[in-house]
Amino acid sequence: MVIFMKENTPKTEIESIKCKLELLHCKVHVSKGENSFILGLTGDKSEINTMEIQCNKNVEKILSVKEPFKLANKVFHPECTNIQVGHSSIGGKQIAIMAGPCSVENKEQIMTIAEDVKKAGATFLRGGAYKPRTSPYSFQGLKEDGLELLKLAKEKTGLPIVTEVMSANLIEKVSQVADVLQIGARNMQNFDLLKEVGKANKPVLLKRGLSATIEEFLMSAEYVMSEGNENVILCERGIRTFETYTRNTLDLSVIPAIKRLSHLPVIVDPSHAAGICWMVEPLSKAAIAAGADGLIIEVHNNPENAKCDGEQSIKPEKFNELVKSLSEIAKINGRAI
Amino acid sequence: MVIFMKENTPKTEIESIKCKLELLHCKVHVSKGENSFILGLTGDKSEINTMEIQCNKNVEKILSVKEPFKLANKVFHPECTNIQVGHSSIGGKQIAIMAGPCSVENKEQIMTIAEDVKKAGATFLRGGAYKPRTSPYSFQGLKEDGLELLKLAKEKTGLPIVTEVMSANLIEKVSQVADVLQIGARNMQNFDLLKEVGKANKPVLLKRGLSATIEEFLMSAEYVMSEGNENVILCERGIRTFETYTRNTLDLSVIPAIKRLSHLPVIVDPSHAAGICWMVEPLSKAAIAAGADGLIIEVHNNPENAKCDGEQSIKPEKFNELVKSLSEIAKINGRAI
Amino acid sequence: MVIFMKENTPKTEIESIKCKLELLHCKVHVSKGENSFILGLTGDKSEINTMEIQCNKNVEKILSVKEPFKLANKVFHPECTNIQVGHSSIGGKQIAIMAGPCSVENKEQIMTIAEDVKKAGATFLRGGAYKPRTSPYSFQGLKEDGLELLKLAKEKTGLPIVTEVMSANLIEKVSQVADVLQIGARNMQNFDLLKEVGKANKPVLLKRGLSATIEEFLMSAEYVMSEGNENVILCERGIRTFETYTRNTLDLSVIPAIKRLSHLPVIVDPSHAAGICWMVEPLSKAAIAAGADGLIIEVHNNPENAKCDGEQSIKPEKFNELVKSLSEIAKINGRAI
Amino acid sequence: MVIFMKENTPKTEIESIKCKLELLHCKVHVSKGENSFILGLTGDKSEINTMEIQCNKNVEKILSVKEPFKLANKVFHPECTNIQVGHSSIGGKQIAIMAGPCSVENKEQIMTIAEDVKKAGATFLRGGAYKPRTSPYSFQGLKEDGLELLKLAKEKTGLPIVTEVMSANLIEKVSQVADVLQIGARNMQNFDLLKEVGKANKPVLLKRGLSATIEEFLMSAEYVMSEGNENVILCERGIRTFETYTRNTLDLSVIPAIKRLSHLPVIVDPSHAAGICWMVEPLSKAAIAAGADGLIIEVHNNPENAKCDGEQSIKPEKFNELVKSLSEIAKINGRAI
Repeated sequence: MVIFMKENTPKTEIESIKCKLELLHCKVHVSKGENSFILGLTGDKSEINTMEIQCNKNVEKILSVKEPFKLANKVFHPECTNIQVGHSSIGGKQIAIMAGPCSVENKEQIMTIAEDVKKAGATFLRGGAYKPRTSPYSFQGLKEDGLELLKLAKEKTGLPIVTEVMSANLIEKVSQVADVLQIGARNMQNFDLLKEVGKANKPVLLKRGLSATIEEFLMSAEYVMSEGNENVILCERGIRTFETYTRNTLDLSVIPAIKRLSHLPVIVDPSHAAGICWMVEPLSKAAIAAGADGLIIEVHNNPENAKCDGEQSIKPEKFNELVKSLSEIAKINGRAI
Repeated sequence: MVIFMKENTPKTEIESIKCKLELLHCKVHVSKGENSFILGLTGDKSEINTMEIQCNKNVEKILSVKEPFKLANKVFHPECTNIQVGHSSIGGKQIAIMAGPCSVENKEQIMTIAEDVKKAGATFLRGGAYKPRTSPYSFQGLKEDGLELLKLAKEKTGLPIVTEVMSANLIEKVSQVADVLQIGARNMQNFDLLKEVGKANKPVLLKRGLSATIEEFLMSAEYVMSEGNENVILCERGIRTFETYTRNTLDLSVIPAIKRLSHLPVIVDPSHAAGICWMVEPLSKAAIAAGADGLIIEVHNNPENAKCDGEQSIKPEKFNELVKSLSEIAKINGRAI
Repeated sequence: MVIFMKENTPKTEIESIKCKLELLHCKVHVSKGENSFILGLTGDKSEINTMEIQCNKNVEKILSVKEPFKLANKVFHPECTNIQVGHSSIGGKQIAIMAGPCSVENKEQIMTIAEDVKKAGATFLRGGAYKPRTSPYSFQGLKEDGLELLKLAKEKTGLPIVTEVMSANLIEKVSQVADVLQIGARNMQNFDLLKEVGKANKPVLLKRGLSATIEEFLMSAEYVMSEGNENVILCERGIRTFETYTRNTLDLSVIPAIKRLSHLPVIVDPSHAAGICWMVEPLSKAAIAAGADGLIIEVHNNPENAKCDGEQSIKPEKFNELVKSLSEIAKINGRAI
Repeated sequence: MVIFMKENTPKTEIESIKCKLELLHCKVHVSKGENSFILGLTGDKSEINTMEIQCNKNVEKILSVKEPFKLANKVFHPECTNIQVGHSSIGGKQIAIMAGPCSVENKEQIMTIAEDVKKAGATFLRGGAYKPRTSPYSFQGLKEDGLELLKLAKEKTGLPIVTEVMSANLIEKVSQVADVLQIGARNMQNFDLLKEVGKANKPVLLKRGLSATIEEFLMSAEYVMSEGNENVILCERGIRTFETYTRNTLDLSVIPAIKRLSHLPVIVDPSHAAGICWMVEPLSKAAIAAGADGLIIEVHNNPENAKCDGEQSIKPEKFNELVKSLSEIAKINGRAI
């Protein structure tokens, strides 16, 4: 249920109606619409008398939300969410460009790449310290040492860090370095982990599961938000289909779909979607043209010898050129890089 | 097998080597590379002595083609195929814009839409006279009357006509009006029909099957080409996946994939892919940004009352605006609309 | 719309009501329910006055059919359709066993296999004369010569012949030998071909398309039936999914689904579904246990050298054993082989 | 790498070669083949001199394993794994029948169902205490109270308990009641959780992820096994495809595939696969006919009012009948219920 307040309703009146509703055991989320405040209700609404609310002189109208996601719903929060992270942001006019290697390998590697992508226009540094791998025998990341290196790269470049957290008991440790906590595609429905990052005070980058529908994707965001963390960034990274030419099939229709259903920012990962370095450019352009709020791109200074995903990483020079042409496309959509 | 001739090899020499090879029972397709001629061989190559060809003073090098498609292969024909249809073209610098209603309904409808899309910048008029429908009880198109109306629209606007042909015995009749013969997604592996349009002297617009891989898609083009018709336009129109929010899932990675594998032009149908009118704009932009050679878009003056696919058709005014912003994106890629 | 007549309504009354309805421009299909006659109506029902029919003293009740398929609907025809073909049948108590090579290769091959499968208990001989192939350069079948050889095998063994027809203009020729006309998976929505086999007087074996839903599958059967040919056999042969270990994914839930929705017989092709010879046995057993009305199995006397699909063909000895264990499973379900 | 020892090699010799290999920093897993011992090696094999091992008089032969899964590989362990749990077992001649409600709701419910399924022939009781749900607002299980009730049901009936564990920090608590720890489909690639149950001393029932390939499925089993827990039961529960008639598409080809690739037992969950109660019978029969080692079936005494998944639960009476006919099919395959 969503309650739209009249224009110019005083803040004290908003607080008063919020209090009354909370006494009836439901949770109230206040957000600002274009001209007035909006009250989103979740939880137990059995004791609420809709007629009574309707009669309140400050209430403009009441809407019921038919979609199963509430906090992530555009109806609850008509304005797009713009998440500020240090000097960077996601969801506003500025397009977020996250770039870096699949996994942190050593100091020289991460420092070089960090400086290169910064120079080229990246606004976030991505890099894996803990790596989810299909095989228990594959390289699983530098772990704590990887975090340390990311910290150094952040100190040097000022770029906020995006890195994956794979289990609840690592959230605290990863949060000491990470500015954005990434939840991988395979954990999109690891509900326990979602609830725990919902209690963290860092934005969450949630990757779409390999076979998750758009509704399930938004429901997983709802898990995070229902614990109090409303800074969720959705990331399309390709879905699993019958096609084997590409590693996954990038589904760009997710962008307009999410823009219509939700206020959350949505970005695209062309590197994992295609799994092929020469597809990163056309798919990145397509994502920005379709209205994505950002990109997360694998960049490696030595892709041939990368410890993982080398075949989908582009070199810093290529990344530099790419950002330039993306900037032109962004302008056509009234955005900037 | 592909034979690259040396630069400045005289035409008479090309003809002579072609003759010799044909005497050995294989088919020879001559195309022009950047600086010299290329001879593509299909059919029975058992009698050919590779060493002997290598020794010919005009032969630069010989390549074997590992992909199962030959005539559609970029190796056979490194230059992009640019198909000229009346004053319009597909595959060159100019982006092809095909627009019109899902099905031709009556004279007023098709004439109005035709003029509207022409004014807005369309370079082809699309419209169904014979309609493949899941149910035998649904409207199957105006058939011959539909063709007559398309003819009138063509006379009025000068736009070349793209329309579907569903069975071999209608090719002749449809060809009297159509400038491009469309093969629908459900017929992508109707090999009999492919062979027959391969004998027609009209370009063929081949839609990707709902669950066809990129290789199968190119193999179906190969069926058409192997009968002598090398003017095939490939069209991505969404594949079938688990996602139900959109009718199909648009797979834009097909564009760079086909550009790498083949010389044939590739266009995108955002209307059928999404099945939702408000997705046509972002997906069209994405397609052009990804490097598509054209678009085929459903435009209807009265979508609410369209005889089929109304929910995915956009209005002429919307189409007009769309073409303008597509034109800006095209420029960034060095193309024009 | 379906009209259930009262028990013991005389045939003359049935004819009379049928006539009246046809005068109102709809088509009437009479079938026999458990105790009484059922009239199924398709086509234009706009002129029909339901109230008036309800008042007829012989009418028990009227039902509207919400599914888009009518003639294939169990409501129209509650009794299972049992198709008699020579001494064999499909859809009754007897399980139909169709066996033979993927393609007819030569006289010795087809005669040997035909006799072997007959001895082992097959009730139909399958064999391809016209072969749909992904590549125009692959073996496309012996064509007319293949039909001739199938004719000889039929004369020798008495087994009815199942063979594919790929285009409308071959229906007549193929029908001279075939007892059952097979429509391949790639042609499941070749509506022109469906209509044409709908006019033939031979049962049609319709294979499920690689990405066809159950409803689309039944709608394609409806295309055949709406032209007058009600003897349609549905065949599950695996659908296309992300899994690549098997060629396709056999979807056995289709069997109970179709048994609930339709009166048409449904059989299973484990050879094409898996594409692996050692899976034929377990999947055949599973199909019969799930209630399939029959199986179509590739059997080859020399799979290593088969002209196509050798890797999924089983040898006659293996087939012989398999039929024995299938017979035991059939008994548990009250069926017989 | 797998080392096959000669027949009658004394145990002391086996131990001695194992010790030497471990000194070279690799892990050695000893298993018993038909006539002799087999040593499976994982981990770092760089220091091993294959020639030297070959020369050992007790070594029959050495095989390298090309599949990425080692411990789960049939080559490492040619005999089928038979897991004993109390008086029940999985993987041997006896078919395991796991039955019970989706979630434990109250004492009366679980006690009644437990006694009913026990009487009908179930060998395990299934029931969810912690429930993974797409929505944070849906019933998430009785949690600890649910575990308590499962304990009572176990005391009463003697049936071992199968219940899901959703996060690493609950393994200890759940293990106090559970005899088999279930990992849900959404957690199949929650690698952290897999490693933790790999350290538990309870068998693990691993459900196949919605879009997991057979190889990924076995790799997830490998994660559990590589931590020392070799008692893994694989469970096919339907994959996600384009078909929407059933909730998921049951992929029975997994059964012969896993039987060929691995020694681990494989069972089938027809309830979640189809999501439709009337499909449970035919799909259960099919699973047993295809060679499954067991079934896990949702049984509820009051499906209409079940707290979750009521539409796919069958009643105890139906379950009772079903087990009888499954027993007959099992016999045909040389198995027993």
